[in-house]
Amino acid sequence: MADVATLVEQARQGRPRAVARLITLVENAAPELREVMAALAPYSGRAYTVGLTGSPGVGKSTSTSALVSAYRRLGKRVGVLAVDPSSPFSGGALLGDRVRMQEHATDPEVFIRSMATRGHLGGLAWAAPQALRVLDGAGCDVILVETVGVGQSEVEVAAQADTSVVLLAPGMGDGIQAAKAGILEIGDVFVVNKADRDGADATARELNHMLGLGESRQAGDWRPPIVKTVAARGEGVDELVEALEKHRGWLAETGELDARRRRRAAQEVEAIALAALRARIGDLRGDRHLDALAGQVAAGELDPYAAADRLVAELTS
Amino acid sequence: MADVATLVEQARQGRPRAVARLITLVENAAPELREVMAALAPYSGRAYTVGLTGSPGVGKSTSTSALVSAYRRLGKRVGVLAVDPSSPFSGGALLGDRVRMQEHATDPEVFIRSMATRGHLGGLAWAAPQALRVLDGAGCDVILVETVGVGQSEVEVAAQADTSVVLLAPGMGDGIQAAKAGILEIGDVFVVNKADRDGADATARELNHMLGLGESRQAGDWRPPIVKTVAARGEGVDELVEALEKHRGWLAETGELDARRRRRAAQEVEAIALAALRARIGDLRGDRHLDALAGQVAAGELDPYAAADRLVAELTS
Repeated sequence: MADVATLVEQARQGRPRAVARLITLVENAAPELREVMAALAPYSGRAYTVGLTGSPGVGKSTSTSALVSAYRRLGKRVGVLAVDPSSPFSGGALLGDRVRMQEHATDPEVFIRSMATRGHLGGLAWAAPQALRVLDGAGCDVILVETVGVGQSEVEVAAQADTSVVLLAPGMGDGIQAAKAGILEIGDVFVVNKADRDGADATARELNHMLGLGESRQAGDWRPPIVKTVAARGEGVDELVEALEKHRGWLAETGELDARRRRRAAQEVEAIALAALRARIGDLRGDRHLDALAGQVAAGELDPYAAADRLVAELTS
Repeated sequence: MADVATLVEQARQGRPRAVARLITLVENAAPELREVMAALAPYSGRAYTVGLTGSPGVGKSTSTSALVSAYRRLGKRVGVLAVDPSSPFSGGALLGDRVRMQEHATDPEVFIRSMATRGHLGGLAWAAPQALRVLDGAGCDVILVETVGVGQSEVEVAAQADTSVVLLAPGMGDGIQAAKAGILEIGDVFVVNKADRDGADATARELNHMLGLGESRQAGDWRPPIVKTVAARGEGVDELVEALEKHRGWLAETGELDARRRRRAAQEVEAIALAALRARIGDLRGDRHLDALAGQVAAGELDPYAAADRLVAELTS
């Protein structure tokens, strides 16, 4: 492998293969990451990150692809990180089926990468920020973070983005009810996609109503807009970009952008610290001491808390 | 609340409300758990635990219910723990729709409890063993652990059980292919449910073929049987119980039962230790030091690894 400094330099120049290899290092939790992140630190915090979440079938990939096109028309360099937190099969890009992204595959100003995080030490909280740092360092102006697979990780993905877009579609059954209050809290911008279908207005109305219910907003608070799109035909996508840019402006003006990024950095540092502590515990796994403790617990001679106390004492002494 | 000693005593006598309240303590990660687990430790390790996993639609609930009936006919006290690792809404039993379990609701020798673990500090690895200890302490002879919701946590649920049952059904599309090798590794017993449907034989054959492919078994190794059931009519369920008891016998004879329980105890102790360490980090969250580190990381002045190093140093000094 090329040495880390060279890879980072190539990624900084926007070379796709170098970017891909660095993200693979993240996915594999490679020891070289320390050096990579140290080298990238000065170039972080430039990209605007947008998270896209929603149940399967609402058109996440199509919307992501349409957003890529829209931002490309604005001359922006765009990164797409498709995160699969549910796949137990790590190490693999699972985007074979993501034909919708194919149209951007040859655009040198678009970086598309998928990442499996399930089974990953520390999971999404650990891996996603580092993958974002790579794309950020590669000069992306905008990074779209999308979940693939089952749509239950809204909250975690949203936590990684400056702006969270929640997608809905009409005719998805009792979509909003099922998702309940959870999605209302995380959405900065809501999209009713497939807006040419029956029920789109009803979905938007219901959503509007639910957003209003939680109303205890103060002047200057952000009021999440609802944008109707038909992403497959590109309709409404310019309006979506407009809503995103408006939110970005609000974030910057109010200081919320810095606050969010600081919170994310704290979580990232915590996740890495926790992974390090977990690794230390892992080092003890073959250890006679942990094995003996486990034997006592299995035999009912010791309760698991008392055993954990001894383990922690050993780690932190 | 009744004091912990009284609750544990009542649970030991098999009083359902006491059992339910103890499991709620687990779900809430209540501080009283330390005392509860210490009191239960001498009574643990008696129950035989069976994990049931499979994609939505294969008939997990129906199969679980049929197994409850079968074990009740054998005079066993049965616990059912339905784990929902995917629900972001913690603290709630989500079994309103589990009508199939209703027939057992009034049986004093059956304990049914659901538990949401998503968002739980430490997740399933932390919570499930402790809920199992409660049911074990309540004198359950058999405990069935079932996942509800999306079926992607096979591996984690299987890790909690003495015997792992993987359920499939014909006509679930490319069920086996999609699940790939993952399910082959964790299944001790395979069930093709809805065996009265077209394609049941083909599913069983395909499964048999795939199990054979991985063949590098030695004499004395366990060869996972494939049982066909129509759980909704109770067909094949006695055969399933027979297969389970056979596996249980194999586990005991080979020493694998002790080995599995010891491994589980080690994981449980690790998970509790990790949660304790995470809580220590959490204590630092409002802390000026972590906030300052996060600020430096967000500003690109410090990389997250270097920041994490400082955090770990602070924790372990």
